[in-house]
Amino acid sequence: MTEVKLLGVGGSSYSRRVEWALKVKGVKYEFVEEDLQNKSPLLLESNPVLKKIPVLIHNGKPIRESMIILEYIDEAFEGPSILPKDPYERAIARFWAKFLDGKCLDAVREALWSKFGGEQEKIKQEAYEMLKIVDNELKGKKFFGGNKIGFVDVAANYIPFWVEIVEEATGNVLITSEKFPNLCAWMDEYLSCSEVKENLPDRDFMLSFFKAKALAENVIS
Amino acid sequence: MTEVKLLGVGGSSYSRRVEWALKVKGVKYEFVEEDLQNKSPLLLESNPVLKKIPVLIHNGKPIRESMIILEYIDEAFEGPSILPKDPYERAIARFWAKFLDGKCLDAVREALWSKFGGEQEKIKQEAYEMLKIVDNELKGKKFFGGNKIGFVDVAANYIPFWVEIVEEATGNVLITSEKFPNLCAWMDEYLSCSEVKENLPDRDFMLSFFKAKALAENVIS
Repeated sequence: MTEVKLLGVGGSSYSRRVEWALKVKGVKYEFVEEDLQNKSPLLLESNPVLKKIPVLIHNGKPIRESMIILEYIDEAFEGPSILPKDPYERAIARFWAKFLDGKCLDAVREALWSKFGGEQEKIKQEAYEMLKIVDNELKGKKFFGGNKIGFVDVAANYIPFWVEIVEEATGNVLITSEKFPNLCAWMDEYLSCSEVKENLPDRDFMLSFFKAKALAENVIS
Repeated sequence: MTEVKLLGVGGSSYSRRVEWALKVKGVKYEFVEEDLQNKSPLLLESNPVLKKIPVLIHNGKPIRESMIILEYIDEAFEGPSILPKDPYERAIARFWAKFLDGKCLDAVREALWSKFGGEQEKIKQEAYEMLKIVDNELKGKKFFGGNKIGFVDVAANYIPFWVEIVEEATGNVLITSEKFPNLCAWMDEYLSCSEVKENLPDRDFMLSFFKAKALAENVIS
């Protein structure tokens, strides 16, 4: 019998994107909530290099790094495709996924958690530049890959759900429909998808968590 | 007729890994040397987001990011495989490639170009930790994927050729066979491969280039 276990954290966008892929493929799995302050021996054994969630364990074999897990799920299980089939379209999807999960996410996170004054405006400008690139890419599109949610959308999953909660917790607003109309339209489409909507963390819990973090890091007083 | 053009820089490890993949597949291509101080309109049009080399242009369509180009070449052209076929082995290869081309390369570059004194020892320690992980992974192996050079080896191509030249230019030695015996054995194997050996930049030219850079950045005086 196939055994699929996901070591993750319910509030993490990285874990949630893997769960999305498992649901798209119709794979039954056991979710194991990790305590990041006290990581389980299974997590440390399964990911000795990075010691990070998520880790997918399929018949005892660990797969690490959320975007790599997504490619694995697409290749190892039957069901609807996560990546396009055409090599060129796959390369385009991987390019945008890398940009959104890398440079863009780093800039957005830094801006969201930046402290008032000092370099804050410069840090926010960098995030705006990244988000403008994404906004342009989404012009005239429902999702990144066309009419169906896919690999790139899920690589960007931090933006439609997590960003808005951190904005509320820190008072540091980045994304408005005036500045990024196409991005905001995509965020609405993304959150309306049933596979996404039914698989989001609890908003109130996340808001309390981020408020506590904002206080601890002196982002708010 | 298939037209394949590679916009790159002869001295760049990122360009060279794409050339390696094209040679493995036996794809005929035109190499277009870019001047990074004065980028061509073709490069800027083909990679408007990152404005970086390498870009592979296949029948007029641009593919960006060297590791994504490698996956594209593997999927779009006939010939020997670059990535393993099995989904789990592919995930393992992608994990190590991401680590080597990301965290590990960043730490090694920072250490190589660090200035004497101050934080240098701490910066070097971080690089040593990364290299130790790689050294352990290579224990008892000829190449990362077994007996044949592949995706992961090429993701690490900066280490066997470029590192040693930068070490000579800056006097900042990181890799010794006492510290990293498995890594050093792999470096020798890698440089002995005919597809690699016949496709390396000119060592003297690279040394002059890095010496000039070391002087300009006050790494040496």
